[in-house]
Amino acid sequence: MAIVLGENQYGKAETRLVRVDRDADEHRLVDLNVSTALSGDLTETHLTGANDKVLATDTQKNTVLAFARDGVGQIETFGLRLARHYVGQLASIHRARVEIEQYPWTRLGPHSFTRSGEGTRLATVVFDGEATVEGGIKDLTVLNTTDSEFWGYPRDEYTTLPETKDRILATAVNARWRFSSTQVEWAEAYATARASLLDAFATTYSYSLQQTLFAMGKRVLENVPDIASVRLSLPNQHHYLTDLSPFDLDNPGVVFHVGDRPYGLIEAEVVRET
Amino acid sequence: MAIVLGENQYGKAETRLVRVDRDADEHRLVDLNVSTALSGDLTETHLTGANDKVLATDTQKNTVLAFARDGVGQIETFGLRLARHYVGQLASIHRARVEIEQYPWTRLGPHSFTRSGEGTRLATVVFDGEATVEGGIKDLTVLNTTDSEFWGYPRDEYTTLPETKDRILATAVNARWRFSSTQVEWAEAYATARASLLDAFATTYSYSLQQTLFAMGKRVLENVPDIASVRLSLPNQHHYLTDLSPFDLDNPGVVFHVGDRPYGLIEAEVVRET
Amino acid sequence: MAIVLGENQYGKAETRLVRVDRDADEHRLVDLNVSTALSGDLTETHLTGANDKVLATDTQKNTVLAFARDGVGQIETFGLRLARHYVGQLASIHRARVEIEQYPWTRLGPHSFTRSGEGTRLATVVFDGEATVEGGIKDLTVLNTTDSEFWGYPRDEYTTLPETKDRILATAVNARWRFSSTQVEWAEAYATARASLLDAFATTYSYSLQQTLFAMGKRVLENVPDIASVRLSLPNQHHYLTDLSPFDLDNPGVVFHVGDRPYGLIEAEVVRET
Amino acid sequence: MAIVLGENQYGKAETRLVRVDRDADEHRLVDLNVSTALSGDLTETHLTGANDKVLATDTQKNTVLAFARDGVGQIETFGLRLARHYVGQLASIHRARVEIEQYPWTRLGPHSFTRSGEGTRLATVVFDGEATVEGGIKDLTVLNTTDSEFWGYPRDEYTTLPETKDRILATAVNARWRFSSTQVEWAEAYATARASLLDAFATTYSYSLQQTLFAMGKRVLENVPDIASVRLSLPNQHHYLTDLSPFDLDNPGVVFHVGDRPYGLIEAEVVRET
Repeated sequence: MAIVLGENQYGKAETRLVRVDRDADEHRLVDLNVSTALSGDLTETHLTGANDKVLATDTQKNTVLAFARDGVGQIETFGLRLARHYVGQLASIHRARVEIEQYPWTRLGPHSFTRSGEGTRLATVVFDGEATVEGGIKDLTVLNTTDSEFWGYPRDEYTTLPETKDRILATAVNARWRFSSTQVEWAEAYATARASLLDAFATTYSYSLQQTLFAMGKRVLENVPDIASVRLSLPNQHHYLTDLSPFDLDNPGVVFHVGDRPYGLIEAEVVRET
Repeated sequence: MAIVLGENQYGKAETRLVRVDRDADEHRLVDLNVSTALSGDLTETHLTGANDKVLATDTQKNTVLAFARDGVGQIETFGLRLARHYVGQLASIHRARVEIEQYPWTRLGPHSFTRSGEGTRLATVVFDGEATVEGGIKDLTVLNTTDSEFWGYPRDEYTTLPETKDRILATAVNARWRFSSTQVEWAEAYATARASLLDAFATTYSYSLQQTLFAMGKRVLENVPDIASVRLSLPNQHHYLTDLSPFDLDNPGVVFHVGDRPYGLIEAEVVRET
Repeated sequence: MAIVLGENQYGKAETRLVRVDRDADEHRLVDLNVSTALSGDLTETHLTGANDKVLATDTQKNTVLAFARDGVGQIETFGLRLARHYVGQLASIHRARVEIEQYPWTRLGPHSFTRSGEGTRLATVVFDGEATVEGGIKDLTVLNTTDSEFWGYPRDEYTTLPETKDRILATAVNARWRFSSTQVEWAEAYATARASLLDAFATTYSYSLQQTLFAMGKRVLENVPDIASVRLSLPNQHHYLTDLSPFDLDNPGVVFHVGDRPYGLIEAEVVRET
Repeated sequence: MAIVLGENQYGKAETRLVRVDRDADEHRLVDLNVSTALSGDLTETHLTGANDKVLATDTQKNTVLAFARDGVGQIETFGLRLARHYVGQLASIHRARVEIEQYPWTRLGPHSFTRSGEGTRLATVVFDGEATVEGGIKDLTVLNTTDSEFWGYPRDEYTTLPETKDRILATAVNARWRFSSTQVEWAEAYATARASLLDAFATTYSYSLQQTLFAMGKRVLENVPDIASVRLSLPNQHHYLTDLSPFDLDNPGVVFHVGDRPYGLIEAEVVRET
């Protein structure tokens, strides 16, 4: 009975990088957080510490920074360039995974910007001979003040929650979508997917956050043909209607206190059947 | 030689509260974080634990929630209502301090919203017979890609920093302004102060972050007559020009890596002399 | 071509709970963070919002709190009790996943405690007819001041890192181990696994963090027969030897500045072959 | 009516630094977070951006690292060395403030360590010709399972809290003490102050957190003659007795759910009268 190495990967996480394009009068800005992870024929370094098959994580970081010199473009493209490079660089490296976060900025002036709240754009590229690309978004917080009900759930001996026909529904959208191709209009796909999520959230009359989630994923798939599936992870950020009756006040959906924890967590994938 | 009680205050921190206004077809939303702190004749509870002069922190929280029932309005006004109430409520309470954070939301639809990145609005009200009101903003991140130099500083035996005629200047604005009155158009004052900060940041050709800070504070005072002084605390979020020469690449202000720590921290008050 | 629901689960995350045992003169304290997630026949709520197959997340939370009344015991056991209950409670629920974090406290007195730095104990239980149990630890930060080298890695055109025969090695251990049984002396298994991780970290002369990782996983498997495999995720928290030569000072491994980001991230599973 | 510069300071925040002492067989480790801030004749850089009176924040950081080469010793001493140096270095710098956090580590072996939960040691040194030294501690979380009551507070129209004769009392100690001298046995003073805080927390039968706070500060002053005053800031981390009656269960102080926000916040200074 032996003890052996199982699945493994290693890399450099969270290289923070800003790329400025000064070619036009109006500067452009790309603000990224890049994490890379490699795997392959790496048993030796785990067993003996021999590093002759290891592309150093410091080198991975340098590569990210050097590649940015030529321009970043869309983060899906940047991830593809990097992932293909790593796998081609060393015979021992069979697979590369590149995760990129892009922070949103709004223009204030020709060379001035302010961070906006539009959500952080995400890309994950895996290359092991074949390339797969995921896009996504996080840090996109949304809230409906009405058109949300929750009732009809079974009551067991531990159920105390009253049913409601009107509640606040709030969540921080975390979505990842898998592209069916690597030839995509990435910027347009992102903009359409993001708008679809917001629109479906705002216009779905909701009987459960699960239903809203499904509507959001479905809307993305309907509007972006290059997306094959969407995974959504939606915290249900509870807004509790405050009981003001001890103070002789009614509270017809006016005052809510907000809880941090616990929170609901609704996770599902929505898939285009082929 | 005795051991005695010095300055003290107590209260309830971070009551998170959402107030919905459903009167019009378009709902309105106020999202607050309220902290209250009281002081006065409170030696007894510190020395013996007798609580007959203590307005319980739970009661302070209830008061915040109950007062929101009538409407919040501008946070400076809400703070004034609360602070005056606490001091009037119990003879032992001589002074109340109310701190409010208001999170920004953008409308998506008649009852739908998304959190925006415009910065968190702040108010601090102190009432001890007299009222003083501070407004402010935090979480407002800004960046200039050029028009920032840093040179001419003395070089001692520990100085290695090269001078620069072009660098990225980035900061997260944290500003607090003191009003000279309690009769102010609060919403307009906030909007003008915020716009002044952004405009001064974007249009000041900078030789030091201190200079930019002063320009920002000055602009606020010039544009909002009801503001007597502004305190600014500006982290200098360093963007380091990456040395790409080992890779035979030049780097004319194109690729920067971003550091988390250490960071510069520039703090000053700008005052209207009277 | 249809759009359908893929994998999904929902639940209540981060119910924070303290359980006090007052039976003996010395009180005992269990401090937990419990997250539950259920899956099964839940298509309906996603498609139409019908909730008759949904065990409400509020009910899941209530169940956690009510079950704690009878005593928590070892967190693996508590997770098993909860997971089995949820699946038995409603025909539509086929699978439950319970994740528990337990925070460490040290005794100060018969009913007084202080939070300690021994690491947060973890358990994840999945029940879908069969039960699988994982244990683990996180927030366990360790550092060696020597006996760590890193050299012999290939140098490509992006490699600038100098080789080193002596460096600081520091990481925050995040380990998860899969038990081969549900009949285990849980407390002893945890204590032995934790001690094995620390001992292997401290006594392994390291040529790479990968090698240290493997030694740590191997030691756990050698010492705890009920553990079938261990997954480790180790950030390499870089301590950079400061260049003091501009100040006419040498630096023989004495002064290091500590970086937050980027950091190395080494992840692998160590498996008992059967 | 002019707009002028008010109080100001600038510096380098959060230089993270590890200092290793390898002189003995057992290595020793000092892990610090150092922030420096200078003030003086600095109007010019605010008004015009002229930097000839500015000791660059990068230089301040270099100085911290270079000074560590000679050994850190006690953090109060290290802060004094740095603060005096900055003020002596440039005629324009009249005042220096040095804040240091020291993270606690426990020995695992001759050159191996693990981060412990004993609290982060603090020092703040201000030098402007005269030196003042503050010590302190934070991140020290403590909990009593009993011997805490809260009753007898006045009930107004917003009071709903039931009185209790037995509750959990939990807080994260944040204490700062001012030394009356700069000639102190710093290590011993810290150890005694820390032990006094823990002992007073554990042994005080509490009728309010204010009372516990005063007892903690008083104990420090009684046991460390060189300390003139102590400021304590204690969040009251509420542990709510869970109502289990809907499940036909009693709850005699056994199950508590833990809230994050809001929390009580009790702040006071305890002073040695002279």
